[in-house]
Amino acid sequence: MFNKEVYIKRREALKKEIKSGIGLFMGNVDASFNYPANVYHFRQDSHFSYFFGLENPGFAGIIDFDNDKDYIFGNDFDIDDIIWMGVQPKVIDLAAKAGVVNTGQYEELGKMLSIAKMESKTIHFLPTYRGETVIELSNLLGISNADVKSGASEDLIKAVVKLKEIKSKEEVAEIEKAVDIAYEMHTTSMRMAAVPGRVEQEIAGTIEGISLALGGPVSFPIILSQDGQTLHNHHHDKVLEVGRMMVTDAGAETHLNYTSDITRTVPVGGKFNERQAEIYQIVVDANMAAIEAIKPGIKYRDVHFISARVLIEGLKKAGLMKGDVDAALEAEAHTLFMPHGLGHMMGMDVHDMEGLGENYVGYDENTTRATSFGTAYLRLGKELKPGFVLTVEPGIYFIPDLIDKFRSEGKFEDFINYDIVETYKDFGGIRIEDDILVTDTGYRVLGKPIPKTIDEVEAVMSNPL
Amino acid sequence: MFNKEVYIKRREALKKEIKSGIGLFMGNVDASFNYPANVYHFRQDSHFSYFFGLENPGFAGIIDFDNDKDYIFGNDFDIDDIIWMGVQPKVIDLAAKAGVVNTGQYEELGKMLSIAKMESKTIHFLPTYRGETVIELSNLLGISNADVKSGASEDLIKAVVKLKEIKSKEEVAEIEKAVDIAYEMHTTSMRMAAVPGRVEQEIAGTIEGISLALGGPVSFPIILSQDGQTLHNHHHDKVLEVGRMMVTDAGAETHLNYTSDITRTVPVGGKFNERQAEIYQIVVDANMAAIEAIKPGIKYRDVHFISARVLIEGLKKAGLMKGDVDAALEAEAHTLFMPHGLGHMMGMDVHDMEGLGENYVGYDENTTRATSFGTAYLRLGKELKPGFVLTVEPGIYFIPDLIDKFRSEGKFEDFINYDIVETYKDFGGIRIEDDILVTDTGYRVLGKPIPKTIDEVEAVMSNPL
Repeated sequence: MFNKEVYIKRREALKKEIKSGIGLFMGNVDASFNYPANVYHFRQDSHFSYFFGLENPGFAGIIDFDNDKDYIFGNDFDIDDIIWMGVQPKVIDLAAKAGVVNTGQYEELGKMLSIAKMESKTIHFLPTYRGETVIELSNLLGISNADVKSGASEDLIKAVVKLKEIKSKEEVAEIEKAVDIAYEMHTTSMRMAAVPGRVEQEIAGTIEGISLALGGPVSFPIILSQDGQTLHNHHHDKVLEVGRMMVTDAGAETHLNYTSDITRTVPVGGKFNERQAEIYQIVVDANMAAIEAIKPGIKYRDVHFISARVLIEGLKKAGLMKGDVDAALEAEAHTLFMPHGLGHMMGMDVHDMEGLGENYVGYDENTTRATSFGTAYLRLGKELKPGFVLTVEPGIYFIPDLIDKFRSEGKFEDFINYDIVETYKDFGGIRIEDDILVTDTGYRVLGKPIPKTIDEVEAVMSNPL
Repeated sequence: MFNKEVYIKRREALKKEIKSGIGLFMGNVDASFNYPANVYHFRQDSHFSYFFGLENPGFAGIIDFDNDKDYIFGNDFDIDDIIWMGVQPKVIDLAAKAGVVNTGQYEELGKMLSIAKMESKTIHFLPTYRGETVIELSNLLGISNADVKSGASEDLIKAVVKLKEIKSKEEVAEIEKAVDIAYEMHTTSMRMAAVPGRVEQEIAGTIEGISLALGGPVSFPIILSQDGQTLHNHHHDKVLEVGRMMVTDAGAETHLNYTSDITRTVPVGGKFNERQAEIYQIVVDANMAAIEAIKPGIKYRDVHFISARVLIEGLKKAGLMKGDVDAALEAEAHTLFMPHGLGHMMGMDVHDMEGLGENYVGYDENTTRATSFGTAYLRLGKELKPGFVLTVEPGIYFIPDLIDKFRSEGKFEDFINYDIVETYKDFGGIRIEDDILVTDTGYRVLGKPIPKTIDEVEAVMSNPL
């Protein structure tokens, strides 16, 4: 946990945004794997963790906006628990670490909410993402599962986004810790990919182990594949072959739930061939151009298109695209090669606050989300502010099904050299992703620099593991 | 997946047990980590996997006992899914792999259940352990969350236990694969524990990575601690110190969800001191005596007490216990040192079928569960049959809170030398666990033998990692 002043300050800030009613923050319970007592790694709810700091299952917090009071509810342990799990601190002692003096056993939460309902107070709660929380809120509030799912407070969502999108110094330091763990994961992945014949799963499992050994669980399911053209590929059953590229998209969490999200793409065996190097360099250029464009005041959608222009220019030079660059960009012809957005906010969730609704986080009254293919997937479009942490992750993919689809529709035929593109159907895909802080004057790439240029990647891979 | 004949045979066997109504088997959906789209490693429901074999989220199976028909319901993918996740097989093709010819899109499941309800058919379903399943069953069956939780079919539970408790040859082979992965995990843990100054988490994370690299997720949250006296200790923050013992209780799953569950306890630094060696040897003896007693027809509760007697004899020789061995065993005085049961069934769940109710799995009309301290925790008491797979995991722990409690209550004072026990309060705990198949004539220890004797452990640790 951070110092208790951090949590007190955060709750004070929220109270400035919301003037009445009570805010109910449900901490997570353990998530069952295959039977009730056998559980996944505990992950605290990010919002409960942000305002109340406790990293234990079974707690809930209340912020009473009417009376300026904070509460934590949970259960103390008994002697049986102590034999099996060791001596545990009491609720009152845990709450004190978050600067909360009002505490109760968990059953008292229900009573407090019943009284609030009788007094017709608004009970603000956030969107849910686990069935256990839906069922518990249904019990606590006496409403149906469906009403829990549709009943989140828009006022609370907006206030939480406003606070959490600006990262404090201590939060940035945590994120850098997570990036430093990702450094170990990615350099290990590179060195292991220098050895053809290995199954992808061996690398994926090993680097997930590094996250668990040095930090917390991985911040999202690892993408590690020779079939990089499949954007969310969670299969790891291919045998590594020279001539193929391997994408690793992976990050770690710290014990306080701050995340990293890094992608690197490497040539199996350790040496780029000519065709790989040409496409790879275009993606490096697009990644760097985007990073260098980041500063307060620019819309991230504009950064997305700065990066896309670099892709188009490079692909034209490589003979894969043709025609006028501006017109191709206007038509969004690059979406054949990069059908996703440039990046997203990152924080205590790897897609920060995605559960509150992407458009609350990535868009605002000045920037509405596009609906066109590819660009619609851009999770962050709005104007950047100092303290935002975001990812920059351009890519070039050769997706056979998409190439066939667009070609048969005659789509982008003024801008795509389909005959040449056809010869790349066995290429796979390349993505390069870094984590960036928006500073007062520009940007800072977070964490220990992870090998990215062709020379840097080949140097690491010359030391196989 | 196994060959489709395996699943056809299993469903046929179930149809012999249950004569009317329909059996509804809910496959798991993805379990959310911190927002809806960010998920834990997918774990299929063990019972769905047993009867239908599919390892993908979002499926349900039906066995119509009245009409001798099997169904699988799920959704086919569209072009968007293919871009993001690659080409996916269709429901009808997946179902064919399990020998199921009747399939439908997921929404048709609801219609089929509505018709069954209108026809007043009994809809048998198993106990749930995830909120998502509770909510989905509540929707599908039109009943409350509470009624889902209390509405499982006892007939179906008993039939499933009867089938699944006997492991077939191909199941035993899968379990042995899981033990072989545990071999790599445990020998790595031993070699890493040879290096004092290391934090426990580094080892725990690394060996979880081995499970992920070679098999599936760990079969349960790893227990790895110098504080072995805390039985379910999931903290890994201690720095390894010479003079302490380190317990590692960890196992893997295979891709078909079969598990292993192995415990080893080693001296930090790699050499047992005299006091450690004396207690360790007692636990080895208790482990071996139990294993050698295993055969069809013996009650596992009797094996538990055979093992307990060896503990008492050894502890008496070491000066920690005193008095008549039979009387101490009768009084269950060993429960100060081993307050848990000797073992449990193991299969597709590490505590096999625990979610169906421990007493359905571990006890029967001839063997009812004890209520006395310690022995009440014995999960398996009933008569053993060929094909059972179970764990043998005796231990000796010095739990300061329990010692203080029993001493202050004057408990077991005829059998415990409390003054000497006090001097062991800094010792920690030792547990040694193996996975055993009950054969037609006796037992077989499953998998590649994992170093267990003092000499074997010291030999592995002489090669630090």
